[in-house]
Amino acid sequence: MTKNEISKTVLKRLPGYLAYLKTISTTNISATALAAALGMGEVQVRKDLAMVSDGGRPKTGYQRESLIDDIEQFLGYDNTTDAVLIGAGKLGQALCGYSGFEAYGLNILAAFDNNAPASHTQEGKPIYPMEELENFCKSNKVLMGIITVPAQHAQEVCNQLIACGIKAIWSFATSHLEVPEGILVQYENMATSLAVLSMHLQAQIKEKK
Amino acid sequence: MTKNEISKTVLKRLPGYLAYLKTISTTNISATALAAALGMGEVQVRKDLAMVSDGGRPKTGYQRESLIDDIEQFLGYDNTTDAVLIGAGKLGQALCGYSGFEAYGLNILAAFDNNAPASHTQEGKPIYPMEELENFCKSNKVLMGIITVPAQHAQEVCNQLIACGIKAIWSFATSHLEVPEGILVQYENMATSLAVLSMHLQAQIKEKK
Repeated sequence: MTKNEISKTVLKRLPGYLAYLKTISTTNISATALAAALGMGEVQVRKDLAMVSDGGRPKTGYQRESLIDDIEQFLGYDNTTDAVLIGAGKLGQALCGYSGFEAYGLNILAAFDNNAPASHTQEGKPIYPMEELENFCKSNKVLMGIITVPAQHAQEVCNQLIACGIKAIWSFATSHLEVPEGILVQYENMATSLAVLSMHLQAQIKEKK
Repeated sequence: MTKNEISKTVLKRLPGYLAYLKTISTTNISATALAAALGMGEVQVRKDLAMVSDGGRPKTGYQRESLIDDIEQFLGYDNTTDAVLIGAGKLGQALCGYSGFEAYGLNILAAFDNNAPASHTQEGKPIYPMEELENFCKSNKVLMGIITVPAQHAQEVCNQLIACGIKAIWSFATSHLEVPEGILVQYENMATSLAVLSMHLQAQIKEKK
């Protein structure tokens, strides 16, 4: 199975394994133990791990550190992906300053915003006007764009990014984006999480009554 | 069907409908048109909407504004949920200052952090030491907690929140959390989104070669 053939659902489970493996300190871990710790099915975990690593041994399981390396390599965390961010508001600036992304191979080169309060983020990343987006993306060969503008401007920004050669878009705006084939949009929809949480609380409050 | 019986997957689709409905300006919209605009199956959209609204009419469909009201009411956006946030780092402060949450009925009352650089966030939300968490949660009857501490401290913070009476946890930490029954954890795992985007870019680059 090549990387291209792996399903998106498997892909979405890999960062979870990785995060857990990094919090423990044992030398070896079996698929069974990993499944139990994460409350997942053993068969699923076994299959997922077999796709990214051939280090599993009967009885002892996987060497934890090798498994971490295999998953990180598979996810491309060892390659750095350069990105531009559009919308240097609070959320945009927070993302620019979030050091945690480096661990995932994401490097935000610059922010773009026509109404930015300053020419740099608090962490010193440059903020350029939108007119400079195309030149910047093309001369830096940037393929990933992060959208942190309000929903009503998101489609316009998305179109501009695609015109600049961007192939993958990470959108924090709540609106749906229309894109041509070959462009991937990944939504970070915080509203969805909030809906699930609120509903749980409403159900709990109702039970108490 | 009561709210308690609605599935989590349906619930997760509702904010998407809502976001789209707010970006358009037509008076009426049919389930068919909504499905087409969002690239979803018509049967699914029809079923989802029927669960939250009885305003659908043959031929004309739904009145857009009534449908927005029905979904918002269903999701509890008309009730405000108070929350506390633990970890007043960059991400935590950005969330405290994110005005977009008000539209979803989320109100972050205060942040808690023992190593905070100041006693207030940039937007004037108070930052208290962790010792005050229990008193604060109990006197304000807070049921939702937001975790924005590094992964290695997340479980400890999670346990403290539960001890303070928190029933729903929104975690931005990448680690898996162990919780007793009745407590819901919703993970906002940015690493997952990044994995999906990176993989798409790797596949695109490979195709070009």
